[in-house]
Amino acid sequence: MPVITIRMAEGRTLEQKRVLADEITAAVTKTFGVEPQVVTIFFEELKTESIARAGKLLSES
Amino acid sequence: MPVITIRMAEGRTLEQKRVLADEITAAVTKTFGVEPQVVTIFFEELKTESIARAGKLLSES
Amino acid sequence: MPVITIRMAEGRTLEQKRVLADEITAAVTKTFGVEPQVVTIFFEELKTESIARAGKLLSES
Amino acid sequence: MPVITIRMAEGRTLEQKRVLADEITAAVTKTFGVEPQVVTIFFEELKTESIARAGKLLSES
Amino acid sequence: MPVITIRMAEGRTLEQKRVLADEITAAVTKTFGVEPQVVTIFFEELKTESIARAGKLLSES
Amino acid sequence: MPVITIRMAEGRTLEQKRVLADEITAAVTKTFGVEPQVVTIFFEELKTESIARAGKLLSES
Repeated sequence: MPVITIRMAEGRTLEQKRVLADEITAAVTKTFGVEPQVVTIFFEELKTESIARAGKLLSES
Repeated sequence: MPVITIRMAEGRTLEQKRVLADEITAAVTKTFGVEPQVVTIFFEELKTESIARAGKLLSES
Repeated sequence: MPVITIRMAEGRTLEQKRVLADEITAAVTKTFGVEPQVVTIFFEELKTESIARAGKLLSES
Repeated sequence: MPVITIRMAEGRTLEQKRVLADEITAAVTKTFGVEPQVVTIFFEELKTESIARAGKLLSES
Repeated sequence: MPVITIRMAEGRTLEQKRVLADEITAAVTKTFGVEPQVVTIFFEELKTESIARAGKLLSES
Repeated sequence: MPVITIRMAEGRTLEQKRVLADEITAAVTKTFGVEPQVVTIFFEELKTESIARAGKLLSES
Protein backbone atom coordinates (compact mmCIF):
# COMPACT_ATOMS: atom_id res chain seq x y z
CA MET A 1 0.00 0.00 0.00
CA PRO A 2 -0.55 2.33 -1.61
CA VAL A 3 -0.98 1.01 -5.17
CA ILE A 4 -0.63 3.67 -7.87
CA THR A 5 -1.83 3.30 -11.46
CA ILE A 6 -0.69 5.72 -14.16
CA ARG A 7 -2.88 5.41 -17.23
CA MET A 8 -1.47 7.09 -20.35
CA ALA A 9 -0.98 6.90 -24.10
CA GLU A 10 1.75 4.56 -25.36
CA GLY A 11 5.10 6.04 -26.34
CA ARG A 12 6.90 7.14 -23.14
CA THR A 13 10.50 5.99 -22.89
CA LEU A 14 11.91 3.54 -20.37
CA GLU A 15 13.92 6.40 -18.89
CA GLN A 16 10.76 8.48 -18.35
CA LYS A 17 9.12 5.54 -16.55
CA ARG A 18 12.27 4.96 -14.49
CA VAL A 19 12.43 8.62 -13.39
CA LEU A 20 8.70 8.92 -12.68
CA ALA A 21 8.63 5.68 -10.67
CA ASP A 22 11.47 7.00 -8.53
CA GLU A 23 9.98 10.48 -8.02
CA ILE A 24 6.43 9.31 -7.26
CA THR A 25 7.72 6.70 -4.80
CA ALA A 26 9.81 9.39 -3.07
CA ALA A 27 6.78 11.75 -2.88
CA VAL A 28 4.53 9.01 -1.44
CA THR A 29 7.04 7.74 1.12
CA LYS A 30 7.78 11.30 2.33
CA THR A 31 4.13 12.45 2.41
CA PHE A 32 2.59 9.27 3.89
CA GLY A 33 5.58 8.20 6.01
CA VAL A 34 5.68 4.69 4.56
CA GLU A 35 8.58 2.52 3.40
CA PRO A 36 9.42 2.47 -0.35
CA GLN A 37 8.95 -1.33 -0.39
CA VAL A 38 5.19 -0.96 0.16
CA VAL A 39 4.68 1.37 -2.83
CA THR A 40 3.62 -0.38 -6.07
CA ILE A 41 3.26 1.52 -9.35
CA PHE A 42 1.60 0.27 -12.55
CA PHE A 43 2.05 2.05 -15.88
CA GLU A 44 -1.05 1.29 -18.01
CA GLU A 45 -0.18 2.26 -21.60
CA LEU A 46 -2.92 2.39 -24.23
CA LYS A 47 -2.83 2.94 -28.02
CA THR A 48 -4.05 6.43 -29.01
CA GLU A 49 -6.85 4.70 -30.94
CA SER A 50 -8.06 3.32 -27.60
CA ILE A 51 -8.36 6.71 -25.91
CA ALA A 52 -10.98 9.38 -26.67
CA ARG A 53 -11.27 13.01 -25.60
CA ALA A 54 -14.27 15.23 -26.47
CA GLY A 55 -15.78 12.29 -28.37
CA LYS A 56 -12.79 11.87 -30.72
CA LEU A 57 -10.18 9.09 -30.72
CA LEU A 58 -6.77 10.59 -29.89
CA SER A 59 -5.34 8.87 -32.95
CA GLU A 60 -7.70 11.01 -35.06
CA SER A 61 -7.69 14.36 -33.31
CA MET B 1 -14.16 14.45 -15.45
CA PRO B 2 -15.79 12.06 -15.81
CA VAL B 3 -13.31 9.35 -16.84
CA ILE B 4 -14.95 6.34 -18.49
CA THR B 5 -13.30 2.93 -18.93
CA ILE B 6 -14.77 0.34 -21.28
CA ARG B 7 -13.27 -3.09 -20.60
CA MET B 8 -13.92 -5.67 -23.32
CA ALA B 9 -12.53 -8.54 -25.35
CA GLU B 10 -10.15 -7.64 -28.18
CA GLY B 11 -11.52 -7.55 -31.73
CA ARG B 12 -13.77 -4.47 -32.04
CA THR B 13 -13.10 -2.35 -35.12
CA LEU B 14 -11.75 1.20 -35.13
CA GLU B 15 -15.11 2.32 -36.52
CA GLN B 16 -16.96 0.74 -33.58
CA LYS B 17 -14.66 2.53 -31.12
CA ARG B 18 -15.09 5.79 -33.05
CA VAL B 19 -18.91 5.55 -32.97
CA LEU B 20 -19.09 4.47 -29.32
CA ALA B 21 -16.70 7.22 -28.17
CA ASP B 22 -18.91 9.78 -29.92
CA GLU B 23 -22.22 8.39 -28.59
CA ILE B 24 -21.06 7.93 -24.99
CA THR B 25 -19.55 11.43 -24.91
CA ALA B 26 -22.84 12.85 -26.23
CA ALA B 27 -24.85 10.94 -23.59
CA VAL B 28 -22.56 12.10 -20.76
CA THR B 29 -22.45 15.77 -21.83
CA LYS B 30 -26.25 15.88 -22.22
CA THR B 31 -27.03 14.02 -18.97
CA PHE B 32 -24.41 15.68 -16.75
CA GLY B 33 -24.39 19.09 -18.44
CA VAL B 34 -20.61 19.10 -18.93
CA GLU B 35 -18.43 20.10 -21.90
CA PRO B 36 -17.21 17.31 -24.25
CA GLN B 37 -13.59 18.36 -23.58
CA VAL B 38 -13.79 17.11 -19.99
CA VAL B 39 -14.95 13.59 -20.97
CA THR B 40 -12.12 11.02 -21.28
CA ILE B 41 -12.79 7.46 -22.49
CA PHE B 42 -10.39 4.50 -22.29
CA PHE B 43 -10.99 1.29 -24.22
CA GLU B 44 -9.29 -1.57 -22.30
CA GLU B 45 -9.08 -4.53 -24.69
CA LEU B 46 -8.08 -7.95 -23.34
CA LYS B 47 -7.34 -11.26 -25.08
CA THR B 48 -10.18 -13.81 -24.64
CA GLU B 49 -7.66 -16.04 -22.83
CA SER B 50 -7.37 -13.27 -20.22
CA ILE B 51 -11.09 -13.12 -19.47
CA ALA B 52 -13.10 -15.79 -17.60
CA ARG B 53 -16.85 -16.23 -17.14
CA ALA B 54 -18.36 -19.00 -14.94
CA GLY B 55 -14.82 -20.22 -14.21
CA LYS B 56 -13.93 -20.79 -17.87
CA LEU B 57 -11.54 -18.74 -20.04
CA LEU B 58 -13.55 -17.09 -22.84
CA SER B 59 -11.03 -18.49 -25.35
CA GLU B 60 -12.12 -21.98 -24.24
CA SER B 61 -15.86 -21.63 -23.72
CA MET C 1 -18.90 -8.05 -21.25
CA PRO C 2 -18.24 -5.26 -21.69
CA VAL C 3 -17.80 -3.80 -18.22
CA ILE C 4 -17.99 0.00 -18.10
CA THR C 5 -16.75 2.17 -15.22
CA ILE C 6 -17.74 5.83 -14.96
CA ARG C 7 -15.51 7.63 -12.48
CA MET C 8 -16.79 11.05 -11.42
CA ALA C 9 -17.22 13.51 -8.56
CA GLU C 10 -20.03 12.78 -6.08
CA GLY C 11 -23.28 14.69 -6.45
CA ARG C 12 -25.10 13.35 -9.55
CA THR C 13 -28.76 12.51 -9.00
CA LEU C 14 -30.30 9.05 -9.16
CA GLU C 15 -32.23 10.19 -12.23
CA GLN C 16 -28.98 11.18 -14.00
CA LYS C 17 -27.50 7.77 -13.27
CA ARG C 18 -30.72 6.07 -14.42
CA VAL C 19 -30.74 7.97 -17.73
CA LEU C 20 -27.00 7.53 -18.38
CA ALA C 21 -27.10 3.79 -17.61
CA ASP C 22 -29.93 3.40 -20.11
CA GLU C 23 -28.30 5.49 -22.86
CA ILE C 24 -24.82 3.97 -22.54
CA THR C 25 -26.24 0.44 -22.55
CA ALA C 26 -28.26 1.29 -25.70
CA ALA C 27 -25.15 2.72 -27.41
CA VAL C 28 -23.04 -0.32 -26.52
CA THR C 29 -25.64 -2.92 -27.55
CA LYS C 30 -26.25 -1.14 -30.89
CA THR C 31 -22.55 -0.53 -31.68
CA PHE C 32 -21.18 -3.91 -30.53
CA GLY C 33 -24.24 -6.02 -31.40
CA VAL C 34 -24.48 -7.56 -27.92
CA GLU C 35 -27.43 -8.20 -25.63
CA PRO C 36 -28.21 -5.62 -22.90
CA GLN C 37 -27.90 -8.35 -20.24
CA VAL C 38 -24.14 -8.63 -20.82
CA VAL C 39 -23.48 -4.90 -20.26
CA THR C 40 -22.42 -3.99 -16.69
CA ILE C 41 -21.95 -0.36 -15.62
CA PHE C 42 -20.29 0.86 -12.41
CA PHE C 43 -20.59 4.47 -11.22
CA GLU C 44 -17.50 5.26 -9.11
CA GLU C 45 -18.27 8.46 -7.19
CA LEU C 46 -15.47 10.26 -5.33
CA LYS C 47 -15.48 13.25 -2.98
CA THR C 48 -14.10 16.41 -4.64
CA GLU C 49 -11.34 16.39 -2.00
CA SER C 50 -10.25 13.03 -3.45
CA ILE C 51 -9.84 14.30 -7.01
CA ALA C 52 -7.09 16.66 -8.25
CA ARG C 53 -6.68 18.52 -11.55
CA ALA C 54 -3.57 20.60 -12.36
CA GLY C 55 -2.16 19.73 -8.94
CA LYS C 56 -5.11 21.18 -7.00
CA LEU C 57 -7.83 19.27 -5.13
CA LEU C 58 -11.20 19.92 -6.84
CA SER C 59 -12.66 20.86 -3.44
CA GLU C 60 -10.16 23.75 -3.35
CA SER C 61 -10.06 24.96 -6.95
CA MET D 1 -21.31 -9.41 -10.27
CA PRO D 2 -18.81 -9.61 -8.81
CA VAL D 3 -16.14 -8.51 -11.28
CA ILE D 4 -12.62 -9.56 -10.32
CA THR D 5 -9.42 -8.08 -11.77
CA ILE D 6 -6.07 -9.79 -11.28
CA ARG D 7 -3.22 -7.42 -12.13
CA MET D 8 0.16 -9.10 -12.53
CA ALA D 9 3.42 -9.24 -14.46
CA GLU D 10 3.30 -10.91 -17.87
CA GLY D 11 4.52 -14.50 -18.16
CA ARG D 12 1.93 -16.76 -16.48
CA THR D 13 0.92 -19.79 -18.54
CA LEU D 14 -2.53 -20.45 -19.99
CA GLU D 15 -2.81 -23.41 -17.63
CA GLN D 16 -2.13 -21.18 -14.59
CA LYS D 17 -4.84 -18.77 -15.73
CA ARG D 18 -7.24 -21.67 -16.39
CA VAL D 19 -6.68 -23.14 -12.90
CA LEU D 20 -6.87 -19.77 -11.10
CA ALA D 21 -10.05 -18.74 -12.93
CA ASP D 22 -11.66 -22.01 -11.86
CA GLU D 23 -10.51 -21.82 -8.23
CA ILE D 24 -11.39 -18.15 -7.69
CA THR D 25 -14.83 -18.63 -9.25
CA ALA D 26 -15.43 -21.62 -6.95
CA ALA D 27 -14.34 -19.61 -3.88
CA VAL D 28 -16.59 -16.66 -4.82
CA THR D 29 -19.67 -18.76 -5.61
CA LYS D 30 -19.31 -20.73 -2.37
CA THR D 31 -18.58 -17.70 -0.14
CA PHE D 32 -21.13 -15.28 -1.67
CA GLY D 33 -23.76 -17.87 -2.64
CA VAL D 34 -23.95 -16.68 -6.26
CA GLU D 35 -24.08 -18.58 -9.55
CA PRO D 36 -20.78 -19.09 -11.48
CA GLN D 37 -22.31 -17.34 -14.52
CA VAL D 38 -22.32 -13.98 -12.72
CA VAL D 39 -18.60 -14.11 -11.86
CA THR D 40 -16.33 -12.29 -14.37
CA ILE D 41 -12.53 -12.40 -14.05
CA PHE D 42 -10.05 -10.19 -15.93
CA PHE D 43 -6.32 -10.99 -16.00
CA GLU D 44 -4.44 -7.68 -16.52
CA GLU D 45 -0.89 -8.58 -17.54
CA LEU D 46 1.79 -5.87 -17.64
CA LYS D 47 5.42 -5.90 -18.83
CA THR D 48 7.91 -5.88 -15.92
CA GLU D 49 9.18 -2.53 -17.26
CA SER D 50 5.69 -1.15 -16.59
CA ILE D 51 5.63 -2.15 -12.92
CA ALA D 52 7.68 -0.54 -10.13
CA ARG D 53 8.27 -1.59 -6.54
CA ALA D 54 10.27 0.55 -4.03
CA GLY D 55 10.87 3.09 -6.82
CA LYS D 56 12.55 0.59 -9.16
CA LEU D 57 11.13 -0.91 -12.37
CA LEU D 58 10.71 -4.68 -11.89
CA SER D 59 12.62 -5.25 -15.12
CA GLU D 60 15.63 -3.59 -13.44
CA SER D 61 15.46 -4.86 -9.88
CA MET E 1 2.18 -8.69 -7.00
CA PRO E 2 -0.37 -9.71 -7.95
CA VAL E 3 -2.94 -7.11 -6.96
CA ILE E 4 -6.52 -8.38 -6.98
CA THR E 5 -9.63 -6.17 -7.02
CA ILE E 6 -13.05 -7.62 -6.26
CA ARG E 7 -15.78 -5.20 -7.32
CA MET E 8 -19.23 -6.00 -5.93
CA ALA E 9 -22.46 -4.63 -4.49
CA GLU E 10 -22.37 -3.50 -0.87
CA GLY E 11 -23.73 -5.83 1.78
CA ARG E 12 -21.28 -8.75 2.18
CA THR E 13 -20.33 -9.55 5.77
CA LEU E 14 -16.92 -9.16 7.33
CA GLU E 15 -16.78 -12.95 7.68
CA GLN E 16 -17.42 -13.41 3.93
CA LYS E 17 -14.59 -10.99 3.14
CA ARG E 18 -12.31 -12.72 5.66
CA VAL E 19 -12.98 -16.17 4.14
CA LEU E 20 -12.68 -14.98 0.51
CA ALA E 21 -9.42 -13.10 1.19
CA ASP E 22 -7.95 -16.28 2.70
CA GLU E 23 -9.17 -18.59 -0.10
CA ILE E 24 -8.15 -16.35 -3.00
CA THR E 25 -4.71 -15.77 -1.47
CA ALA E 26 -4.28 -19.54 -1.07
CA ALA E 27 -5.33 -20.15 -4.70
CA VAL E 28 -2.95 -17.47 -6.02
CA THR E 29 0.06 -18.56 -3.95
CA LYS E 30 -0.43 -22.21 -4.94
CA THR E 31 -1.08 -21.52 -8.66
CA PHE E 32 1.59 -18.83 -9.17
CA GLY E 33 4.12 -20.14 -6.65
CA VAL E 34 4.42 -16.79 -4.83
CA GLU E 35 4.52 -15.91 -1.13
CA PRO E 36 1.25 -14.81 0.57
CA GLN E 37 2.90 -11.51 1.60
CA VAL E 38 3.02 -10.33 -2.03
CA VAL E 39 -0.72 -10.85 -2.64
CA THR E 40 -2.87 -7.72 -2.11
CA ILE E 41 -6.67 -7.84 -2.33
CA PHE E 42 -9.04 -4.87 -2.54
CA PHE E 43 -12.78 -5.23 -2.00
CA GLU E 44 -14.52 -2.41 -3.92
CA GLU E 45 -18.10 -2.21 -2.63
CA LEU E 46 -20.65 -0.06 -4.47
CA LYS E 47 -24.27 0.89 -3.66
CA THR E 48 -26.78 -0.99 -5.84
CA GLU E 49 -27.89 2.41 -7.19
CA SER E 50 -24.36 2.79 -8.56
CA ILE E 51 -24.40 -0.46 -10.54
CA ALA E 52 -26.44 -1.13 -13.70
CA ARG E 53 -27.12 -4.34 -15.61
CA ALA E 54 -29.08 -4.41 -18.91
CA GLY E 55 -29.53 -0.64 -18.65
CA LYS E 56 -31.26 -0.77 -15.27
CA LEU E 57 -29.86 0.29 -11.88
CA LEU E 58 -29.61 -2.79 -9.62
CA SER E 59 -31.48 -0.88 -6.91
CA GLU E 60 -34.46 -0.71 -9.31
CA SER E 61 -34.41 -4.09 -11.03
CA MET F 1 -3.90 12.43 -19.82
CA PRO F 2 -2.38 10.90 -17.87
CA VAL F 3 -4.93 9.76 -15.31
CA ILE F 4 -3.39 8.65 -12.00
CA THR F 5 -5.17 6.55 -9.37
CA ILE F 6 -3.77 6.23 -5.85
CA ARG F 7 -5.44 3.36 -4.02
CA MET F 8 -4.85 3.33 -0.25
CA ALA F 9 -6.34 2.71 3.17
CA GLU F 10 -8.62 5.42 4.56
CA GLY F 11 -7.19 7.87 7.08
CA ARG F 12 -4.83 10.23 5.25
CA THR F 13 -5.35 13.91 5.99
CA LEU F 14 -6.55 16.54 3.54
CA GLU F 15 -3.11 18.16 3.83
CA GLN F 16 -1.38 14.91 2.82
CA LYS F 17 -3.64 14.62 -0.24
CA ARG F 18 -3.04 18.30 -1.09
CA VAL F 19 0.76 17.89 -0.91
CA LEU F 20 0.84 14.58 -2.80
CA ALA F 21 -1.44 15.89 -5.58
CA ASP F 22 0.91 18.84 -6.03
CA GLU F 23 4.12 16.78 -5.99
CA ILE F 24 2.88 14.01 -8.30
CA THR F 25 1.52 16.55 -10.79
CA ALA F 26 4.89 18.35 -10.75
CA ALA F 27 6.77 15.07 -11.32
CA VAL F 28 4.48 14.06 -14.21
CA THR F 29 4.54 17.45 -15.95
CA LYS F 30 8.34 17.64 -15.69
CA THR F 31 9.00 14.03 -16.74
CA PHE F 32 6.42 13.80 -19.56
CA GLY F 33 6.56 17.43 -20.67
CA VAL F 34 2.80 17.94 -20.38
CA GLU F 35 0.73 20.79 -18.95
CA PRO F 36 -0.58 20.47 -15.35
CA GLN F 37 -4.17 20.90 -16.62
CA VAL F 38 -4.08 17.52 -18.37
CA VAL F 39 -3.05 15.60 -15.21
CA THR F 40 -5.98 14.07 -13.27
CA ILE F 41 -5.45 12.32 -9.92
CA PHE F 42 -7.95 10.13 -8.07
CA PHE F 43 -7.47 9.11 -4.44
CA GLU F 44 -9.32 5.80 -3.90
CA GLU F 45 -9.63 5.31 -0.13
CA LEU F 46 -10.79 1.96 1.24
CA LYS F 47 -11.63 0.78 4.77
CA THR F 48 -8.91 -1.47 6.26
CA GLU F 49 -11.56 -4.22 6.44
CA SER F 50 -11.77 -4.01 2.63
CA ILE F 51 -8.05 -4.60 2.06
CA ALA F 52 -6.20 -7.88 2.59
CA ARG F 53 -2.47 -8.68 2.61
CA ALA F 54 -1.12 -12.26 2.95
CA GLY F 55 -4.70 -13.50 3.22
CA LYS F 56 -5.57 -11.36 6.24
CA LEU F 57 -7.83 -8.28 6.36
CA LEU F 58 -5.70 -5.23 7.29
CA SER F 59 -8.23 -4.40 10.03
CA GLU F 60 -7.34 -7.74 11.66
CA SER F 61 -3.60 -8.00 11.08
